[in-house]
Order: sequence, then C-alpha cells, then structure tokens
Amino acid sequence: MNSGESDRTLGDIGEFELIDRMTRGRPESSDVALGPGDDGAVVVAADGRVVVSTDMLVEGRHFRLDWSTPHDVGRKAIAQNAADIEAMGARVTAFVVGFGAPPETAAAQVNALADGMWEEAARVGASIVGGDLVASPQWVVSVTVLGDLAGRAPILRSGARSGSHLAVAGQLGCSAAGYALWHNGIDRFDELRRRHLVPQPPYRQGRVAADAGAQAMIDVSDGLVGDLRHVAEASGLTIDLSTEALSVDRELLVGAAEAVGVDPWSWVFGGGEDHALVAAFAGRVPAGWRVIGRVLDGPADVLVDGAPWRGYAGWQSFGAR
Amino acid sequence: MNSGESDRTLGDIGEFELIDRMTRGRPESSDVALGPGDDGAVVVAADGRVVVSTDMLVEGRHFRLDWSTPHDVGRKAIAQNAADIEAMGARVTAFVVGFGAPPETAAAQVNALADGMWEEAARVGASIVGGDLVASPQWVVSVTVLGDLAGRAPILRSGARSGSHLAVAGQLGCSAAGYALWHNGIDRFDELRRRHLVPQPPYRQGRVAADAGAQAMIDVSDGLVGDLRHVAEASGLTIDLSTEALSVDRELLVGAAEAVGVDPWSWVFGGGEDHALVAAFAGRVPAGWRVIGRVLDGPADVLVDGAPWRGYAGWQSFGAR
Repeated sequence: MNSGESDRTLGDIGEFELIDRMTRGRPESSDVALGPGDDGAVVVAADGRVVVSTDMLVEGRHFRLDWSTPHDVGRKAIAQNAADIEAMGARVTAFVVGFGAPPETAAAQVNALADGMWEEAARVGASIVGGDLVASPQWVVSVTVLGDLAGRAPILRSGARSGSHLAVAGQLGCSAAGYALWHNGIDRFDELRRRHLVPQPPYRQGRVAADAGAQAMIDVSDGLVGDLRHVAEASGLTIDLSTEALSVDRELLVGAAEAVGVDPWSWVFGGGEDHALVAAFAGRVPAGWRVIGRVLDGPADVLVDGAPWRGYAGWQSFGAR
Repeated sequence: MNSGESDRTLGDIGEFELIDRMTRGRPESSDVALGPGDDGAVVVAADGRVVVSTDMLVEGRHFRLDWSTPHDVGRKAIAQNAADIEAMGARVTAFVVGFGAPPETAAAQVNALADGMWEEAARVGASIVGGDLVASPQWVVSVTVLGDLAGRAPILRSGARSGSHLAVAGQLGCSAAGYALWHNGIDRFDELRRRHLVPQPPYRQGRVAADAGAQAMIDVSDGLVGDLRHVAEASGLTIDLSTEALSVDRELLVGAAEAVGVDPWSWVFGGGEDHALVAAFAGRVPAGWRVIGRVLDGPADVLVDGAPWRGYAGWQSFGAR
C-alpha cells in the first residue's frame, strides 16, 4: 500500500527526515552562529552571559487538541517561554524544542506545530536552533529559551523596594476567561477564547522596563496574586493591589464572566497564562505600563485594597492543597 | 488522614515546594551567575557564544521504571545531554530540566531522580540551574544542556577529510547488549546491564579531541554505522571501519551475545546510547582514543572492511523503514 504524502505519519517518515523538514529553509537570526543539524547548536552570547529558562507542555494538561490547532500549540509553547526571558529584562536569542508524539500522528500536524513555533519565534525575533523528536503516548512539547541581557543586570523577583509603584504590561485574566468559556462550551467571546489558546505576551516590554529602572519583575504565568506572592516573599515586602486600577482589566471580562457565572475578579487575580509582565518602579512607569498597586513595608504578602485576597490566587502543576 | 513524609506524593507536596527541594542546598559551579528561583537563570558565557542541545526521554520508550531506578534515569538524562556538548568539543556549563510525572508519584522517587541528576552533573562539573515540573500521564524527562567552547571552533560532522584516521573514545555496544540482556530476562553480565541503565560517556575527551585537532566529531547515540553515516554525508566522504580494530569491542560482548543468541557485531555496529565519541584526526590520535577506521575519498557511505554493512545500523525515534 502506498499512502499519499498528506496521509503520512511520523512512523512513515522517521525522525531524521522530520527534523530536516522542521528546520530546512527556516530563517536564521544573527544570533545563530551554528544552526540545527549537528550534536549542538551555537548561539551568540556577546554579553558574556546567557539567560536560560524552560517550560514543558503536556497534552490534556496544558493544551487540548480538540480546542487548539497544532499551530496554536506551537505558538503558545514559544510565547510562554519567551515571556520568561522578557521577565528577566532580556532579549530572546534562540529556542530549542523537545517534542514527543505517538508514531501514528500525521506528519502534517507536526509540520503545523513547527510552523506555529517558527511564526511565534519570528514575532519574538529569534530562531529555533535545535530539538529532539521522540515517540510518546501523548504530545509533549518542551521548550528551552536563551536570552541576552546586553550588559543589563537581570531583573529579579527580589528587588522590589517599599514605596514603589507596581505596574503591568499586557493583559490579565483573558486566558483564564477563555479557558472557562471553552470548558463550558460557550462559543462567543472569540477573542478571549483565542487568548487562551495563544497568549500575547508584551514582547519587548521586559527590556523597556529594565531600561526604565524596574527593580523587580515577573511574568504572570500562574496567576497575578500567586505570582506576586513570589515577588513579595523574595523582596520581603507587602504588595497592595488596587481594584480601582484593575477595574479596566475586569471590565473586559464582565460579559464572559456573566455567561460563565463567575466573579470576573477571580480571573483578574487568579488567572495565569496571559504572560503579562508585572514590575516595580521607583519613579514614573514607562509607556506601555499601567500602575496597578504599591509596594509597602510589611510582612511578605499580597493584599487587595489593603485586605487579604480570599479568592482563587493561581495554579500549581500538581494542584497542591 | 495524615500520611507520613515517606508516603507523600507530588500532589500532596505541590510544584513549588518540590522545585525548592530539588534545588535547595545544591552546589553551584562558577559558571552559574544566577541559579534557580527566578523566571530564568543566568549562566556565564565568557567565550561570547554558547553551545546548546536538548534530549527528551519518555518512560516506556527510553527507560523503564521496572529496570531503572529513578536515580538511574536522572543520571542517564544528564549523561546523554552532556555527551552532545562533548561532541562539539565544548565543556558543559549548565543544565535545565523539564520533568513530567503523574500526581500520584511518590515524592521520594522524584527526589531520587533529582539526586541522580545532580550526581551526574557533578561528574560533568556543572550545575542544574532551572527547570519545570508538570503533571503528565507517564514520566517525561527533558534536559537542555549549555556548553562553553572557550575560544575553540565547534567540531562539526562536516569537517572530516580524506586520508584521516577515525578514532573512538569510550565503549561501543555495551548499552545495546545490556538492553538485550534485560529484554531477555538474563540476570548475568551485571556491568553490561548497568551500562544500559546509566551510560558512561568519555567526559573531557571531546575537548581533548578538539585540542588535538579533531576535524569532525559525533557522539554515538543511535548506533555507530548510523551516526557515522551523518558524518559521511556531511563531509561528503566514505568512512571505512575495520573489524580488526573493533575486535576489542566485540570481545567484551561475546559472552552476552552467546547468551542472547545474536551476533555481537550487531551491537558494535548498530548499538547506540553508549555515547562514545568518534572523531576524525589527520595525524596521531590523542591519549584515550583508539583508531577504528579511515576516512576515504568516495561516495558518502559507511563501509566495514571495504564492504557495505548489511546488519543493524541504528535507531530512529519512530522506527522509520
């Protein structure tokens, strides 16, 4: 039997041809000293240091192939990794990708995943320089991202100082709203549902914040209150968020929250995966950033209008109690 | 109900505490400018370039938890990634790790995995600087490794020249022999069975080869003939392996091959996962290396004693035909 090109599976094509398809003819940024095809790639690190971060996405846990296209999954995996580099005040220079899937997976789906990855990588301004393709019972996408500080100090979680403004770049709660809409089978609010499948981190704002003197920074991957708790603990200070300042975020979610039947604040304060950046600034916040709270002397905690937040604060991988 | 510490699962402990346990109190090498705990780590790259490679291991495909302990799995994942950096002629500077496992996994097993990773990383002389822990239906270990060329040119697959010696550092066929022994339930030949669970790449020999003028280099991850085919194709030359030179490798496998009932040459020529290094040298080969063949003018191919190799040549992830 001779199956057509369009019906071919990973098992038909094999690892090496597939890797070749995923990398051949793709653009290489000037950060790539040696691209894919050898035991390792070589990436420029002119600063003398390299920032590195990694995230793993598992089918059924971090994405569903009945909601997301493979192209969406590729974009999301690249975007959320890029956000971690932004949150250090750095520029993404390269990605490597590990990908596992069942041998019966259509090669066309893997090509679409690769296209999504390269599309998002191009948005970031970086190339995919290497990877590994393996057989796995379900899809697993593991991305590692490298970044360049260009002489800057990395912006840590621990640098916030009392009296500073806390500001955000990007949106809050959209991905969580989208998840709830998908989960409840509500096929309106296309933009929010789309945001759950493909986040839109505020690319370049990490460096803007660093250059504007950001003291501390984090990307909102698990939930605003939960992630800011890391900043509060690392900095040994209290963070007080303002519902007045955040009401603009809430407004965007009200209709969807009514449709789902939840409090939109739970998405603003507890929703992750939008990969907004939150940073502390001593003085004025730069263009593209909005003040949402203050850093105060006090025990390491996150408050809302001066009081503890009793609602959903964020996600942990194993659903700890 | 109050379960004891020793019975606790990933679901009991949660992602953040687990990450803390896996990284707290571990040694940091001088290559680490910023260790785990923020959105990204920062690794020294004094050379102005960084080498990067990644490998994914899936339970049931790349390891079995009824053969390997979690400690073995951790060592193997680190070792095979380190070998890719060696094969570029570089020194490993840091690792990041993505790990997926079911929530009901005992935390003690994950601690053992981490201990194995740190033990092997210490052997390499590098630290684990970051990671991601997620829920997954089976264990998935994804490691990315960074390396430093220290001013050297990377040793590519494409640099072999006609008339050069082909030499190996490390062992061939041991992992494949060990796999066959495990698979056939033969509980003798402990050392070979052990080698399948934990490879022993010839750490530091990649740099030795580079400094001795290696023209081309690769690590044997999929099988000697299959991997050398990449070198032959990239260099546009014929590689001719010598059974006389390789008989010392065969000798170590004869007893196990008789017990399993196979030709030991199939392990020497087709067995991967030992992560031996193979390199081409114009002149004398350095200490720690043995000549096993020659590079010749001719079509891109791998021969054995001047004739095509008809046996098993190596592994591909999706078992391509």
